[in-house]
Amino acid sequence: MRLSPPGFQRFSQAESLEVVYGGGEANVAVAVAQLGITASHVTCFPENDLGYSAAASLKKWGVGTEYIVYKGNRLGQYFLEKGSSLRASKVVYDRDNSAFAQLSPELFNWKEILKGASWFHWTGITPAISHNAAVACLQAIKAAKELGLTVSGDITYRKNLWQYGKTVQQVMPELVEGSDLVICGESEAEEIFGIQSKENINDPFETLGRGLMERFPNLKKVISTKRETINASYNKLGGIMWNGEQVIQTKSYDIEPIIDRIGGGDAFMAGFIFSALKGRGDRNALEFATAASVLKHTIPGDALLVTEKEIEQLMQGNAVGRLVR
Amino acid sequence: MRLSPPGFQRFSQAESLEVVYGGGEANVAVAVAQLGITASHVTCFPENDLGYSAAASLKKWGVGTEYIVYKGNRLGQYFLEKGSSLRASKVVYDRDNSAFAQLSPELFNWKEILKGASWFHWTGITPAISHNAAVACLQAIKAAKELGLTVSGDITYRKNLWQYGKTVQQVMPELVEGSDLVICGESEAEEIFGIQSKENINDPFETLGRGLMERFPNLKKVISTKRETINASYNKLGGIMWNGEQVIQTKSYDIEPIIDRIGGGDAFMAGFIFSALKGRGDRNALEFATAASVLKHTIPGDALLVTEKEIEQLMQGNAVGRLVR
Amino acid sequence: MRLSPPGFQRFSQAESLEVVYGGGEANVAVAVAQLGITASHVTCFPENDLGYSAAASLKKWGVGTEYIVYKGNRLGQYFLEKGSSLRASKVVYDRDNSAFAQLSPELFNWKEILKGASWFHWTGITPAISHNAAVACLQAIKAAKELGLTVSGDITYRKNLWQYGKTVQQVMPELVEGSDLVICGESEAEEIFGIQSKENINDPFETLGRGLMERFPNLKKVISTKRETINASYNKLGGIMWNGEQVIQTKSYDIEPIIDRIGGGDAFMAGFIFSALKGRGDRNALEFATAASVLKHTIPGDALLVTEKEIEQLMQGNAVGRLVR
Amino acid sequence: MRLSPPGFQRFSQAESLEVVYGGGEANVAVAVAQLGITASHVTCFPENDLGYSAAASLKKWGVGTEYIVYKGNRLGQYFLEKGSSLRASKVVYDRDNSAFAQLSPELFNWKEILKGASWFHWTGITPAISHNAAVACLQAIKAAKELGLTVSGDITYRKNLWQYGKTVQQVMPELVEGSDLVICGESEAEEIFGIQSKENINDPFETLGRGLMERFPNLKKVISTKRETINASYNKLGGIMWNGEQVIQTKSYDIEPIIDRIGGGDAFMAGFIFSALKGRGDRNALEFATAASVLKHTIPGDALLVTEKEIEQLMQGNAVGRLVR
Amino acid sequence: MRLSPPGFQRFSQAESLEVVYGGGEANVAVAVAQLGITASHVTCFPENDLGYSAAASLKKWGVGTEYIVYKGNRLGQYFLEKGSSLRASKVVYDRDNSAFAQLSPELFNWKEILKGASWFHWTGITPAISHNAAVACLQAIKAAKELGLTVSGDITYRKNLWQYGKTVQQVMPELVEGSDLVICGESEAEEIFGIQSKENINDPFETLGRGLMERFPNLKKVISTKRETINASYNKLGGIMWNGEQVIQTKSYDIEPIIDRIGGGDAFMAGFIFSALKGRGDRNALEFATAASVLKHTIPGDALLVTEKEIEQLMQGNAVGRLVR
Amino acid sequence: MRLSPPGFQRFSQAESLEVVYGGGEANVAVAVAQLGITASHVTCFPENDLGYSAAASLKKWGVGTEYIVYKGNRLGQYFLEKGSSLRASKVVYDRDNSAFAQLSPELFNWKEILKGASWFHWTGITPAISHNAAVACLQAIKAAKELGLTVSGDITYRKNLWQYGKTVQQVMPELVEGSDLVICGESEAEEIFGIQSKENINDPFETLGRGLMERFPNLKKVISTKRETINASYNKLGGIMWNGEQVIQTKSYDIEPIIDRIGGGDAFMAGFIFSALKGRGDRNALEFATAASVLKHTIPGDALLVTEKEIEQLMQGNAVGRLVR
Repeated sequence: MRLSPPGFQRFSQAESLEVVYGGGEANVAVAVAQLGITASHVTCFPENDLGYSAAASLKKWGVGTEYIVYKGNRLGQYFLEKGSSLRASKVVYDRDNSAFAQLSPELFNWKEILKGASWFHWTGITPAISHNAAVACLQAIKAAKELGLTVSGDITYRKNLWQYGKTVQQVMPELVEGSDLVICGESEAEEIFGIQSKENINDPFETLGRGLMERFPNLKKVISTKRETINASYNKLGGIMWNGEQVIQTKSYDIEPIIDRIGGGDAFMAGFIFSALKGRGDRNALEFATAASVLKHTIPGDALLVTEKEIEQLMQGNAVGRLVR
Repeated sequence: MRLSPPGFQRFSQAESLEVVYGGGEANVAVAVAQLGITASHVTCFPENDLGYSAAASLKKWGVGTEYIVYKGNRLGQYFLEKGSSLRASKVVYDRDNSAFAQLSPELFNWKEILKGASWFHWTGITPAISHNAAVACLQAIKAAKELGLTVSGDITYRKNLWQYGKTVQQVMPELVEGSDLVICGESEAEEIFGIQSKENINDPFETLGRGLMERFPNLKKVISTKRETINASYNKLGGIMWNGEQVIQTKSYDIEPIIDRIGGGDAFMAGFIFSALKGRGDRNALEFATAASVLKHTIPGDALLVTEKEIEQLMQGNAVGRLVR
Repeated sequence: MRLSPPGFQRFSQAESLEVVYGGGEANVAVAVAQLGITASHVTCFPENDLGYSAAASLKKWGVGTEYIVYKGNRLGQYFLEKGSSLRASKVVYDRDNSAFAQLSPELFNWKEILKGASWFHWTGITPAISHNAAVACLQAIKAAKELGLTVSGDITYRKNLWQYGKTVQQVMPELVEGSDLVICGESEAEEIFGIQSKENINDPFETLGRGLMERFPNLKKVISTKRETINASYNKLGGIMWNGEQVIQTKSYDIEPIIDRIGGGDAFMAGFIFSALKGRGDRNALEFATAASVLKHTIPGDALLVTEKEIEQLMQGNAVGRLVR
Repeated sequence: MRLSPPGFQRFSQAESLEVVYGGGEANVAVAVAQLGITASHVTCFPENDLGYSAAASLKKWGVGTEYIVYKGNRLGQYFLEKGSSLRASKVVYDRDNSAFAQLSPELFNWKEILKGASWFHWTGITPAISHNAAVACLQAIKAAKELGLTVSGDITYRKNLWQYGKTVQQVMPELVEGSDLVICGESEAEEIFGIQSKENINDPFETLGRGLMERFPNLKKVISTKRETINASYNKLGGIMWNGEQVIQTKSYDIEPIIDRIGGGDAFMAGFIFSALKGRGDRNALEFATAASVLKHTIPGDALLVTEKEIEQLMQGNAVGRLVR
Repeated sequence: MRLSPPGFQRFSQAESLEVVYGGGEANVAVAVAQLGITASHVTCFPENDLGYSAAASLKKWGVGTEYIVYKGNRLGQYFLEKGSSLRASKVVYDRDNSAFAQLSPELFNWKEILKGASWFHWTGITPAISHNAAVACLQAIKAAKELGLTVSGDITYRKNLWQYGKTVQQVMPELVEGSDLVICGESEAEEIFGIQSKENINDPFETLGRGLMERFPNLKKVISTKRETINASYNKLGGIMWNGEQVIQTKSYDIEPIIDRIGGGDAFMAGFIFSALKGRGDRNALEFATAASVLKHTIPGDALLVTEKEIEQLMQGNAVGRLVR
Repeated sequence: MRLSPPGFQRFSQAESLEVVYGGGEANVAVAVAQLGITASHVTCFPENDLGYSAAASLKKWGVGTEYIVYKGNRLGQYFLEKGSSLRASKVVYDRDNSAFAQLSPELFNWKEILKGASWFHWTGITPAISHNAAVACLQAIKAAKELGLTVSGDITYRKNLWQYGKTVQQVMPELVEGSDLVICGESEAEEIFGIQSKENINDPFETLGRGLMERFPNLKKVISTKRETINASYNKLGGIMWNGEQVIQTKSYDIEPIIDRIGGGDAFMAGFIFSALKGRGDRNALEFATAASVLKHTIPGDALLVTEKEIEQLMQGNAVGRLVR
């Protein structure tokens, strides 16, 4: 549950907060569902009106909620204050004790849940939240591999979330080991896996990709957005990939003004998953994922709410910004 | 009736829609009325609360509603989703069966209506909507010419509106024939009148203007905005004119961010009509019309709500953007 | 698509309109889905953003949208001005040419659609809209009977909707013939079926029920709300039933202030369908349906968004109106 | 210019204020214009954006603004905090130095302004504001009498407004002397004219009416609303008249909840003026005026925005509060 | 931090939530500060933007925040869904792990904090939240007694809050022992202290009062509101007191519609504290406290924002509900 | 009291106005209070709900209100229409007759008020409003000097405010004479003090500073923002200082889009006062003040609501515009 002051108010000015239900994995599920792919979100929500409201929101955007377990105390929250130009956006997390943090791994029969599916996606938020969440995540990945699903992970390392006793260095490797594809940035590669790509001036992403694949031979692709933050209202955004053979890089888009940058990485992932499932090649998939991420920045809320055609139009650069009648 | 989601929401996110009553000819009427010229809007509205509300809105902005006929089923609508940066704005039309589309030409006694007026303006939306609307438009133009009014037309060719059996190529020439001045862009000149101006590299607008005036000797001026769409939030805008003798072109304004670009062409027309009625020369009128159009992009809603002085200040480039105390 | 001015504004005062997607059958589907019953809405929506938004709204409330056909021009609308005390609420319909009105019966394979279902519900709005809609409705009822579903209908006779050439007296009987249960009020019984119940002073509803069942032997129950309209803000509401043997009547609830009375009949129907499917007896089902309808009046929008437990609590009269912590 | 906190917020809670342009005479003008009578508002507004906005609001509701003089410092304001049940509504006036208070009588050529009109209406707010306003009011009344207009006045005595040196007892008689009809309550009659009607237990309004007419032989009718204030949300309201021959009294309406009681007296006056101009008899006119006043209480803002038909329906008590489709 | 859907929306309908910072003791502090008494709120808020915003809100209403300790994880929340007529309001608590629940008693040097004060007030929410909070509360009461302050407590027993291992029966007596005055209802007296007052048909509150005073000889007065809940929009409210000698009871007020009933008990307490500090006698103090509580129901938010004069006017019944100009 | 149409509406479009309580000196007080410095605002507010609301707003932001005198007619207002890109923002003042304009100098015992303070700040708005306000301002400055406070002044010369008979040239010198630091721009220096700095091409600000210090030997520093107005949405902003020895100049920040530029100068002053009180050196203080002013442009309302740390982060250019988690 995300709560934001309207417009560009500071927290202390807000008399009301806009409500959006989102989160890394949920955002990916919403985006691919909007693109026409059947998707379900598997999680724990509290058995109260907020938990039900979160599920109703997922349903609205076409995401299956049949595997959500309603159990536990509270819905995780974060408060988002939208910044502008030279004032940064600000997030206050309030996730302690959430139903999700307290989930029991045995609540989920992954073999049952994943039956018939072709893709499983996880993010680094899950193993950061609690030991149990990390265990459930690992069980899911293992079940997914057994059932032959493609597994993708978004590393998203948030240092201050890891509070329950284990370190990201202890937990993350096993999760990546079971994955076919990860989103991983240069700092993450260095801090978690000790892969120092920045020193390789010529092609740091190749270094990063090779490093990861050496350690995790199961990995087939490493992808990432390349974001240049001019200020809170203006970013440049491109995509990059190491597919084991070469680095592929997209053009960089100018996004100004940014309407809502939350979920930009999730939209990138969703665009890539969609493309992969539709059989697009590496370059095309990366272009599609990048355009998807760009469009996310123009839409309020956590989730990418666009059609395949809209992403294609941006990729092709036709009539960008013209009125569509 | 225009209905838009607040802010930059997508249609599917909207829990409410902002209401503005507008439309090509109405927007011109509002703008000139705000500039101090007596203006009336002649149309058909349904005899229900929405029709009365549309008329009340026109009254608010000083437009005469004494010739509006309340008859017919429904008020034409369009839904506008405002885009931002790399996401285009989107329009969903819902004009079928509108009172306007169903109007009977005999409802309007143009000789009576136009008595004492000095200018009549029409747009290409009207003849596109229905056969009856096209007939009424032509009758009005003829009556206006007989009474000695200046007649202006804004071609605005929307391909998908022409659904009632006749083509734009069949209908439009007769309307332009009766006009003294038209707004016409290069694509329109080519698609409707077969005038290929783009091939003339040196001065396409001269080619366009000469072509039109050869075919329609009554025409005295052809004008157009020159818009460069960087993206949905950022456009460059200038004006251009062929007055039978020379091409006149204004400087190009940077508009960023765009608050609402709907009605930009109508504001241009209104600025030109106002200038012509006030006896401004061609260059000055074009500069005024362009500045008027630029200001429209900074105002929410369909219509240009500014004073002559505000347009003058922009034309003169003084204190652009400074706080007016 | 329902569009309403905020608060108690008149149409002419509204600068924005609140959007709710609703309609008779859809409201019933939402209400039973919220109560935990699997339900799908079968209809035609236009293939545009408004049609998709309407479907997303149904999905949010748990209603299946898998049989919705996206085809046709426009989404039917109605504009609702909420009244207060001595000023009545006001509705402006704008349903002409809607995708629903233009549906082709052959778009729906009812045998396929209804497979595995146990209940089919229709309202009198559908056959009033167009000939095709009436045909599709009848085909659905017949298929439902063949497959052994229970069929319910809500007569809801709106005189001014019947514009396509057939009269309600020609169309309605065949629909009722295939139904097990109908909601029918005294005026409807008289105007459509010529059953004059009001003259029977002692027990008009028995007269109504007996009259209907004589003509339509398939009918097992006739139900209705009993509404006393003190003013636009204050109604008294009870329920009544003829089950072939006796008249059952509930107590009358005082509803003041009314938050939103649209959909009160649909909530009544939904409450009854839910009760019947759960095996509640006639009296209990009627009490449940009435309490459901009462609660609808306290909730903004067209649809009843409550749990079984909330309805039960109102039925039991415990702690009515106390804060639930 | 009226500024109100949204909903039932106290002033200190308000982060925004709703804007309505209203005032006694303006409200009467809007109401009769909405009923279809040509009406103009004659006043002074400041020559700034607030003055123009006030005029635009009058135009929207069909009131002529051709005699408004734009001159002077500021627009008069009042701040309204809406109360509820046992908390009273509260008004903070900020009218000092308003353009209206500072108007010069010579700005208005009443003979010219009133030419062709049939009715002139004034309220007791005007002579209370400033000496100049009182002089202008008297000049208007005299010109109106000379031209044969009917003159009505609404005494509305607000003790704390009379600050400029003259007393109401000095100023008011001359105004009433030129009037054919006044709204006058019992306290006003006593405080201003020394007519003690309350002691006449049997028929205080007859005493009041006779007393006024003795003193002002020109008066033909005295009317008033009869309001019983149960609390801030619930009033009972009727109308009463002395027409020189008899007391006529309407039934009393229960208004609960009150949406906005400001302008209730102005709606009463407007209803009466409309009725008189349409040739309705005394009883019918009083019933119409009372129903008009009642409806005002259900509409947000200062002004009565209804049609003749809507008032008639309330008078006839048909279908009060039912949904109008 | 209280978060409520706008108007009468259900939680699942809310796209935004209105924010109010409140809580039992804070509400009392705000109310007495608004009445002109110096008051401070002593608590723990998290050291983040939400904690600072809560403090800013207290400051706005004139409450001292100098003793607030900024420490701990999160701000306690509750979600309030406002009901209407026959739908009850609903509260979802989310207070686990709040900074307040986790406070260390040693953070507060009560001798220092209470120096110079004359009154200390606590509520039964505090000892229910956590062991530490209960300890801090008891230490404060003891310090207050030592320093000669009057101590009041509001029992407010919420069964489901007591989760940390101790029972209300174990903790509450010691707190009441140190108090001079408590608010205590009949169910609370029975469930916590075993005082069965309801069986005493003639005067249950005397039984309750005598029972409490026997057990806690330090107690000088027991007070309570008497609420009759007609429905969620309509309550009757009076006050009652046992002062050791007699039962005093006020008249009962009709509150309809209720704007916001949260904080009604806190306003009652605040009214009583204010009265006691101002030397009002028992009856007058109770009347004042009751009128204060009634007014709270007409004001959005948790806190009573009124002046002494406004409460007096309601007590005196003058002009209740009339417009205050 | 500032009243603004929402978003980018023109005044005539506004149905509501956003309320902010601000003003030059108040904005400085709020900003330094937010930075952790004890600050009080000394002024006259009317003794009504608007005056109390203005004070509550100051309290919320931590500003002392203990010396505010509640006396006089009305609260000064200004109406702000926010412009965008090529449409300038517009202000309509309504300050005549405000409580502040009418204050009596004897209401303020400056020796008492300033006791224990270390800084006094005034702006050029105060002496422009009325003779009495100018007198009070001068008395305050003198008292401050006697008590050894540092005195700062912000010249802010608004030609059209000086209406009460004295000229700025007569009044201002005495105020500057008592000040240690002023904000003064080039036009102000020229128009008020006849210092023509622009002709000195090489270093106009040195000329300005030297000129002022020669005339007012008490002055220790002259500072100013350097604003380049690209358009209403995009400004470049730096700071400049003459400290008697050298010109110090900061880098220029790009602010795009501007959220609210009102109060930019006050934030600059507040940043400088804070820095000076904290012992920062000239360059650092100027950098801090400039960054403070820049951040103000990103925050809605008149006042700078940031922490020292947030300003520091902008100064250091780290992670500008990145999401702060």
